[in-house]
Amino acid sequence: MKIVLLSGGSGKRLWPLSNEVRSKQFLKLLCDREGAHESMVQRVYRQIVQAGIDAEIVVATSSTQVEAIRGQLQNDVDIVVEPERRNTFPAIVLASAYLESRKKTDPEETVIVLPVDPFVDVEYFETFKKMDERVQQGDVDIVLMGIAPSYPSEKYGYIVQGASGRVKAFREKPDEAAAKELIKEGALWNAGVFAFKLKYLMHIADNYVPSRDFDDVVHNYAQLKKDSFDYEVVEKADSLVVIPYDGAWKDIGTWNTLTEEMEKESIGDAIMGEECVNTHVINELSIPVVALGTQNLVIAASQDGILVSDKHKSSYIKPYVENINNRPMYEERRWGEYKVYDYSQYADGTKSLTKHITINADCAQDYEMHQFKDEVITVVNGSGELVIDGCLMKLSCGDTISIKRGQKHGIRAFQDLQLVSVQIGEDVTEGDTQVFDWIWAN
Amino acid sequence: MKIVLLSGGSGKRLWPLSNEVRSKQFLKLLCDREGAHESMVQRVYRQIVQAGIDAEIVVATSSTQVEAIRGQLQNDVDIVVEPERRNTFPAIVLASAYLESRKKTDPEETVIVLPVDPFVDVEYFETFKKMDERVQQGDVDIVLMGIAPSYPSEKYGYIVQGASGRVKAFREKPDEAAAKELIKEGALWNAGVFAFKLKYLMHIADNYVPSRDFDDVVHNYAQLKKDSFDYEVVEKADSLVVIPYDGAWKDIGTWNTLTEEMEKESIGDAIMGEECVNTHVINELSIPVVALGTQNLVIAASQDGILVSDKHKSSYIKPYVENINNRPMYEERRWGEYKVYDYSQYADGTKSLTKHITINADCAQDYEMHQFKDEVITVVNGSGELVIDGCLMKLSCGDTISIKRGQKHGIRAFQDLQLVSVQIGEDVTEGDTQVFDWIWAN
Repeated sequence: MKIVLLSGGSGKRLWPLSNEVRSKQFLKLLCDREGAHESMVQRVYRQIVQAGIDAEIVVATSSTQVEAIRGQLQNDVDIVVEPERRNTFPAIVLASAYLESRKKTDPEETVIVLPVDPFVDVEYFETFKKMDERVQQGDVDIVLMGIAPSYPSEKYGYIVQGASGRVKAFREKPDEAAAKELIKEGALWNAGVFAFKLKYLMHIADNYVPSRDFDDVVHNYAQLKKDSFDYEVVEKADSLVVIPYDGAWKDIGTWNTLTEEMEKESIGDAIMGEECVNTHVINELSIPVVALGTQNLVIAASQDGILVSDKHKSSYIKPYVENINNRPMYEERRWGEYKVYDYSQYADGTKSLTKHITINADCAQDYEMHQFKDEVITVVNGSGELVIDGCLMKLSCGDTISIKRGQKHGIRAFQDLQLVSVQIGEDVTEGDTQVFDWIWAN
Repeated sequence: MKIVLLSGGSGKRLWPLSNEVRSKQFLKLLCDREGAHESMVQRVYRQIVQAGIDAEIVVATSSTQVEAIRGQLQNDVDIVVEPERRNTFPAIVLASAYLESRKKTDPEETVIVLPVDPFVDVEYFETFKKMDERVQQGDVDIVLMGIAPSYPSEKYGYIVQGASGRVKAFREKPDEAAAKELIKEGALWNAGVFAFKLKYLMHIADNYVPSRDFDDVVHNYAQLKKDSFDYEVVEKADSLVVIPYDGAWKDIGTWNTLTEEMEKESIGDAIMGEECVNTHVINELSIPVVALGTQNLVIAASQDGILVSDKHKSSYIKPYVENINNRPMYEERRWGEYKVYDYSQYADGTKSLTKHITINADCAQDYEMHQFKDEVITVVNGSGELVIDGCLMKLSCGDTISIKRGQKHGIRAFQDLQLVSVQIGEDVTEGDTQVFDWIWAN
C-alpha cells in the first residue's frame, strides 16, 4: 500500500495564522499524546504510524508548501510538486506517475489517496487496511471510505450503498429532508478517500499524457483536465465499493471548529481575566495578550495581524482579510524560520526589511544572490559559518556581516543560529533571489 | 499668574499603552480642533493658550517623564524634576521654590496648581482668571476651584460653601445619600486646583527646609512631609474661597471612559466587521487588527501587549497586568522615539535587544557609553552624523556601525534618521549608560 496525501491550497480562513505561504494544515494548534503542539499534517502522519501502517507516503502539493512540509515531517515523506494548481485529478495522476516511474511501485499495489487535514481518530487509518484488502480482491475499480453521518448535513456529498457495499449512487449536498431520508437508507458521507490499484489510474492517465514517465507528466501537466478526481474518475468507474468508518471526522477549517479541538483555552503568552467565558487565545507574538470579561471570543495574534472575533462570526472572515496584502511576516523553512519585525517604504523610494532569522543546528540556507538589495546580518546567538563569493568565514555571537547586492552568500549553523537581518534596497522581497550550487565541506 | 502642572505617576490602568515610562497623559488618543491626535498633556497646554492665559508654565514631575514632556511640549514649559516621588505637597513647594529662586517671580504673584490630565472645556481655564483676581484681593489664603457636581458621586471630595464663596467645610467621599444632601446645599467637587500667592506657600515651606534656594529645596526634599497639599496646606489654611466651574470635567483614567471621548471608533490599522457594536480599537502596531461581531469591547495593542476587554471590565485591569514586568517596548524621547522589536535571553547568558530608533531631523542623542553591551547600528533611512570616541563620521542609508563596549558615541540627524540597533551583552537595558559632554559643530 502507498499513501498519497493531498496538501491543499492556502487560505485565509484561519487568518492571521494562515496566509499565502502558511496553510492551516501547518499550524501547530493541536496536541499530540504527550501534550506537545502538533499541526494537522503532523497529526495525520503520527496517526498513520500509530495505526501500524507501514506504507511509503507521497505528499502532492504546490512549491510554496515544500519548505513547511520538510520542516514539519523532515524526510519521512516524499514530496511531489504540482507544476501549477489544477484540482485533485491531475494531482493524483502526478503522484501516481511518481510512484510508478520513480519509486518503481508494483502496478498491482494499492494506492490510497486522502486530504492532508482530516481531524479523525486512529480507526480512520485502520480502515485503510480493509480498503486495501478490498482493492486487492480485484473485482472493483475504486474503494471509497464512507463516513457514518452524525447529522443530516446539507454541505456534504452522500454515497448510497447497495448490497455488499457496492455504490449505487452519489448525492451532492441534498437539502435537510433529503439528507434525513438518505441517512435512513444507510447512505454515508463521501470523505474524499479513494483506494485503487496503481495500474487502474495509470491506464486512465494514458488518455491525457504521452507517456507515464514522471518528467513527461510534469511537462504535460496542463494536458490533465482541471477537474476533481470525483468527477473525472470516480463517477466514470464501472465498479465502486464503499467501506464505512464510524469514528470522529471533522473539518476544522474555521476558528470556531478549531478552538473546539484545542485542549487548553490558550496557546502562547495569554492572561485570562476570571470572568472570561468560552474564550480562546492563540498568541504567536512575544508580547502578552490579556483578555478581560470576554465571551465566546477567539483572539488570534501572529506577525501578520490580530483577530478578535465572536466565534460564530469567525467563518465570515474572508472578505475582511482578503484585501490585506501585506507580505507574509512569518515563514517556516527547511532550515529553520524567519519572522519579520518591520517592512517600511520611505519617501525616497527605498525599502527596508528587518527580520529575525533562526537557522537550526546543522542546517544551511541556500547559496544565493540578490540583485536589488544589500543586507546587514548581525549574529545575536549561536555559531556557524558564512560563505561569501566562495570564501569561508566562521560566525559567532556579535559578528556583523555586510552583504552587497551581487554577492553570493550562504550561512550554515553549527549550533542554532539567531540572526538579525536588515535588508535595504529597491526590492526587499524573497523574490529577488538567485540560487547557486554550493557543497559545504564537513 | 504662574501655572504649575502636576504630572502624576505612571500606571497600568491604560495598559498596554501606559507603562512605567509612558503615563496616560502622554497617549495621543484625543483629537485637537483640526482632528490631529493629541495627548492629555498637549490638550491641556493647547486649552491654556486658547483661554488667552499668558502665564509661564512649570511642570513638576519625575525624571522618567522629562523626555516625554520635552517631546510633546518642546521648550514651551519649564520642567521641575522631583528628586523622588513624595506626594503633592512637596512637589508644589519644589515648583514654587523654582519660581521664586530661579525665575525670580514676584512673591505677590498668583500661582495656580492643577493636575496635568483633567478632561475639561476651555472655560475651566478661563476660571483661572477669576481665581487670580480673587487671590489678588488679598483677604484669602487659598482659592480653590469647585466643580458643579453632575451626580451624587461617592468617589470625590465635596467643598461646602458659605457666603461669598467662603469654604465652610470639606467632606471626603460621602455615601450617596449624604452626597445628595451636599449637592442640595450647593457643595462642589474638589478638583485639586489651588490658587495662592507665591509668598504664602514659601512662608509655609520655611518650616521644612533651611532656605528657599531651589538647590537647597532639592537637596532637602526628603524633609518635606510626604503628604497631600490638601492635607498639609489647604485644611490648615485660615481662609479659603471656592470659585465654581460648571463645564465638563472628567477623569479619563480607564479604557471605558477614554473610549467615550474618542472621535472615531478606531485609531491605527483596524478593520471592523459590519456586526461590531460599541467596539473601539486602538492599534499602535504596524500589523492590522480585525474585529468581527464583537460587542462592547475595547481592543488595544502596542509593543507592550494586547488587551481585549469588555468595556465595563476594563477598570479591573490592574491585578492582571501588574505582574507583567517586561521592559518598556516603546519610549518617546527628547530626540525622537524607539520601539523594541525583540528582547531575548539565551541559554549561555547572553542577552540581545533589537530596536528601531527614530532620531528626528536636527536632533541628537546623548554622547554616551555602555559598559556591558556592544551595539551594531544599521542606517535604514535618512542622514546624519556619528561621533565615536571624538571622531566624526557621516551617516547615510545602508551604513553599518559597530560600537564596542567602552566606546563613547552619539548620533545626530540631519534628516529624520531611521536606525536598526542590535545590542548584545550581559546587560542590554537603558540603565547601562554613562553620559558625557559633547558639543556638535554647526
